[in-house]
Amino acid sequence: MRITGIFEKAVPVASTMRNAAFDFSEMTTSVVAVVTDVVRHGKPVVGYAFNSTGRYACGAAMRARFVPRILSAAPEELVDDAGLIDPEKILQRMMLREKPGGDAERSVPIGTIETAVWDALAKILDRPLWHVLAERFGDGTVAATVPCYVGGGWYRPEGDLAALSDEVKRHLGAGYTHIKIKVGGASIKDDLARIETAIGLMAGADHLAVDANAALSIGRMRDYAVALAPHGLRWFEEPCAPLDYGSFAGLAETYRPPLATGENLFRLQDVENLFSFGGFRRDRDILQVDPPQAYGVGAYAQMVARVEALGGSRQRIFPHGGNMMSFALVAGLGLGGCESYPGVFAAFGGFADGMEVCDGHIALPDHPGIGFEAQPALYQLMRELADA
Amino acid sequence: MRITGIFEKAVPVASTMRNAAFDFSEMTTSVVAVVTDVVRHGKPVVGYAFNSTGRYACGAAMRARFVPRILSAAPEELVDDAGLIDPEKILQRMMLREKPGGDAERSVPIGTIETAVWDALAKILDRPLWHVLAERFGDGTVAATVPCYVGGGWYRPEGDLAALSDEVKRHLGAGYTHIKIKVGGASIKDDLARIETAIGLMAGADHLAVDANAALSIGRMRDYAVALAPHGLRWFEEPCAPLDYGSFAGLAETYRPPLATGENLFRLQDVENLFSFGGFRRDRDILQVDPPQAYGVGAYAQMVARVEALGGSRQRIFPHGGNMMSFALVAGLGLGGCESYPGVFAAFGGFADGMEVCDGHIALPDHPGIGFEAQPALYQLMRELADA
Repeated sequence: MRITGIFEKAVPVASTMRNAAFDFSEMTTSVVAVVTDVVRHGKPVVGYAFNSTGRYACGAAMRARFVPRILSAAPEELVDDAGLIDPEKILQRMMLREKPGGDAERSVPIGTIETAVWDALAKILDRPLWHVLAERFGDGTVAATVPCYVGGGWYRPEGDLAALSDEVKRHLGAGYTHIKIKVGGASIKDDLARIETAIGLMAGADHLAVDANAALSIGRMRDYAVALAPHGLRWFEEPCAPLDYGSFAGLAETYRPPLATGENLFRLQDVENLFSFGGFRRDRDILQVDPPQAYGVGAYAQMVARVEALGGSRQRIFPHGGNMMSFALVAGLGLGGCESYPGVFAAFGGFADGMEVCDGHIALPDHPGIGFEAQPALYQLMRELADA
Repeated sequence: MRITGIFEKAVPVASTMRNAAFDFSEMTTSVVAVVTDVVRHGKPVVGYAFNSTGRYACGAAMRARFVPRILSAAPEELVDDAGLIDPEKILQRMMLREKPGGDAERSVPIGTIETAVWDALAKILDRPLWHVLAERFGDGTVAATVPCYVGGGWYRPEGDLAALSDEVKRHLGAGYTHIKIKVGGASIKDDLARIETAIGLMAGADHLAVDANAALSIGRMRDYAVALAPHGLRWFEEPCAPLDYGSFAGLAETYRPPLATGENLFRLQDVENLFSFGGFRRDRDILQVDPPQAYGVGAYAQMVARVEALGGSRQRIFPHGGNMMSFALVAGLGLGGCESYPGVFAAFGGFADGMEVCDGHIALPDHPGIGFEAQPALYQLMRELADA
């Protein structure tokens, strides 16, 4: 069993959305296909992934370093004792001749390829990835459904309270019960009006989270914390810069409701620093590392174990990126829940067809692998890549 | 005054050297040319830089994001009140639509372009970059010479004590007085033999530094610390992973002589975290951030100011990267000293012709800009890029 080719294409995420820090008008993502020599239904098994949203495509680094390292290995170096392709060995092979540190430059291309390898492996095993993960990293049992919340409430070019209200109603009508909206891209007064509008439509303030996208100054962060605290929101996300552990710790001392961060942490060491120096509260704060952006699926499972060793809970890990990759990890490892971006980020912002939301939960689908084949627009992009 | 084109080429650094963490056999660097519409001696002024050593070339990110952002700006947006190109405004322009965090992925391409802009600016002013920096960030005065030490003592494929001894003698014969050698790529016993061999040839143990390149396990780090401490070496560099502030702090409590780190820190926040959480000792420890890899020259000057505000000293900042870019910063800002890699990293490992070492110091040259024009092999690469 061997990998015969790895292909990448940069695709615009085609979003007009804006958060408090930046807009997505130039944003791209890398779609990756890992082709194996295993044949199923008359065709080679191909693993797919993309590098989530918010980090630009990274195909050049793949082509210059990571793909040649994999393809130049002896095939027996990259399989496990059962002769199956081994994501951990492939990860280590990609790390050859990489200098310590500077992870964000490589954790995204490496993590995306590694995630596609897991997709291929699960398809070879003819099982959903969540099933493979539950067996390899747990006792094989899973819950029947996964909690999903909407990451929405973006600042729209045309945005106003009526548009936000319509959006919240649409999500609730679709079966969601928990929603996250942006803050920090308007005045505190206007943001509070947005928050109160959303809460007014929902079952309670603890169903609403807010996301400042690391765009607030320290002074504004404190002002927001004072204004937000009485509402008892579900969480206050990225109140400060992602590596500003000191400010996060200071806020954790005064702001009682949950804080959240992690989508801009790229390796386990960053998470350990957040726990050691960021005042991350094991009993309430939320961790949101993005799987394909942080060295992939295997690194995620290691991180979950480490978080629990440090006194945290997997119930408070909500992976960034509303997509099938995060869904498989949440389902397979029993994490807190999954983000969802209905109608945003073009082909990259949804789940497989037929995954209906009911009372804020989505039932586990049974597509082999990650399940991209059941996302027609996305799978079209992926299949073209493998066939090219 | 405007930038008319920015060009990049990936060039192998062509080194057979190995440290304790990895080898350089695949390593590349990005050579950059920033072409302006200012004409001197009948030709456009062109600024040059390269992304130092140890981080792979990054031209794809430049071409996809940073170069188009600069070239699409109105020229008047990128100049200062005197009408000169403004590196800070160009930096801010490159940061458009960049998501917070994940710095290493962008700080190298951005920092390299920014450094080339400074080279162009200094040439437009017809002064050495060190002179421009001394005026812009200080009182304009500089020392006549800069302390330079050799970053050497690599593990060679053929390496033994006789080869190391020859190397040390060669450096001392060339006028150097301070040398750094690698540790961690052999047994502690063999490394101690290397250290004792080097010390035996030098004026004192405090003239020798050692560099573990972040490759030691925590247990080995502690063993090395115990073995090294009695020698009173100049410094013990990268004893642990670059972001492992907890281990660095633990070591700083027990290992009395100076520690050093920083070549794998990519933004000011990392340095602040090192000071806040890493137990960095203001009175002795050494900081070694690499200028073009960490957002460039302007960010370096800001970092120096911040280090002093935190109680550190610019006298203990030794920029990573033995090249003319680091030299200009050390000379212009009065930093501790400069690294030098004689005979390593092909065209990328030296200073301008005529820069002789005398008693461990090099006199300030007077080439306009950074001075790459006086490095024939490197300038050949750069000029081809601008002429292409």
